[in-house]
Amino acid sequence: MPRKTPAAKTEEAPRPIGVFDSGIGGLTVVAELRRLLPGESIFYIGDTARVPYGGKSQSTIVRYSQELAGLLLAERAKLIVVACNTASALAVQSLEETLRVPVTGVIRPGAEAAVKATRNGKVGVIGTRATVYSKAYERAIEALDDGIEVIAEPCPLFVPLIEEGWLDDEVTDRVIARYLEKLLRAGVDTIVLGCTHYPLLRGAIQKFVGPGVKLVDSAQNTAIAVQKLLKQQKLTAPRSKHPAKLQVALTDPGAAFLRVAEEALGLGIGEVLGRAVQK
Amino acid sequence: MPRKTPAAKTEEAPRPIGVFDSGIGGLTVVAELRRLLPGESIFYIGDTARVPYGGKSQSTIVRYSQELAGLLLAERAKLIVVACNTASALAVQSLEETLRVPVTGVIRPGAEAAVKATRNGKVGVIGTRATVYSKAYERAIEALDDGIEVIAEPCPLFVPLIEEGWLDDEVTDRVIARYLEKLLRAGVDTIVLGCTHYPLLRGAIQKFVGPGVKLVDSAQNTAIAVQKLLKQQKLTAPRSKHPAKLQVALTDPGAAFLRVAEEALGLGIGEVLGRAVQK
Repeated sequence: MPRKTPAAKTEEAPRPIGVFDSGIGGLTVVAELRRLLPGESIFYIGDTARVPYGGKSQSTIVRYSQELAGLLLAERAKLIVVACNTASALAVQSLEETLRVPVTGVIRPGAEAAVKATRNGKVGVIGTRATVYSKAYERAIEALDDGIEVIAEPCPLFVPLIEEGWLDDEVTDRVIARYLEKLLRAGVDTIVLGCTHYPLLRGAIQKFVGPGVKLVDSAQNTAIAVQKLLKQQKLTAPRSKHPAKLQVALTDPGAAFLRVAEEALGLGIGEVLGRAVQK
Repeated sequence: MPRKTPAAKTEEAPRPIGVFDSGIGGLTVVAELRRLLPGESIFYIGDTARVPYGGKSQSTIVRYSQELAGLLLAERAKLIVVACNTASALAVQSLEETLRVPVTGVIRPGAEAAVKATRNGKVGVIGTRATVYSKAYERAIEALDDGIEVIAEPCPLFVPLIEEGWLDDEVTDRVIARYLEKLLRAGVDTIVLGCTHYPLLRGAIQKFVGPGVKLVDSAQNTAIAVQKLLKQQKLTAPRSKHPAKLQVALTDPGAAFLRVAEEALGLGIGEVLGRAVQK
């Protein structure tokens, strides 16, 4: 038998931040993470085979989220970001109860930013049907300040309009007006963009609501929450000879919208990996 | 040991027609089947856990279709109707090659109707991205009459608008105009509604294209194709003391759109069953 030689001492690649979303929209969170934490590697999985989650039941969304978290742990993720409002609303608790790595969703960071931003105590929340009906933002905002009134409105056509690329478009403007009129009538001074796709409509929404209403983007605030969590848990990436990497995997490769988002967000995504779910 | 007694002679319930769709839209086909074949029982599965299929890759759609066909065979389906244009375009061939029961999609019936309807040889086809990019209607129409010119246009916002219930709505009218202008400019006299949701927009589409353009609805023509196939294969339901049943199962129970469709189509759907996919 050959004699065993000790393995050469190699520096192991740093563990990435794991990010998942129902599809491509969570890349808005990745863009903010890259800006704020350029030294951190990121592994992103978009569940394009089963997108959208917005109309599905809680048990289905929990099952999908657990499966995606498992794929990220297989990539040695040190922390998991649920970059999907629907999954954040319905599955973060289940992930926190079952996983040994820290988990953060996008709801609490968005709620914190809204509470800081409002002056008149009236906050609007927009998102998918599942996010809005879950009342997750109401609960998160109330836990921070129970004097704040939350008015929520599902906007199910925003995602398909964004994925169609109609970002600056008269039809989209009319849909925005239809959905947001009620929030303006209620006198909100702050609106939470409660879906990771929505930052791509920020310009059009701001145009309709006017400069007096502040738009709170959970992507940016989630990146800040991740930075804090990494420090608290002493998980910040060490200086390394390995450059920080961004890897993107999709559960279905046929997602035309990926390249639209890559360009709109200025992300450099190389080869897109595949990951299978539910054989 | 107790003596074996012969089982009481019972009449077995007739085998149902199995129908599947990516979601709820295929109920437009079920409504036509009920009208044309009131003596046939139907078992319908809507894959609401993974809807929509329109943006997914062929390999994913084939895998999902095989899984749903398997669930229908477990219900003793005697014939399988793929009541989804995307799955018809991409998965019928695979099902025909692997299953022992007859399979029919919605593409060929729609193509036949379009060939009969056109006077000027210019046919428009509208559907999801996956259906249009598959060129399945072009191939089916060409196989029947290669002198016909087909102009196809993906309309990815129609399904979300229909599921939002905006059937008679000024925003929907503008989206219709945006998508269909090109077909009118090309001079089509016939348009195939190449998605099982679209019959719910028939009124609004007819209003835009005017009375000179004939709308071909694959639901109706698929029911006629099923009737022929049952006769050919001697599978027509025998007269039975069992009343013809309609059973509906969904892979995700949280589909608000089901009751909208039930009402719009005048279907009597009782309790909705559950069916699990991809554990």
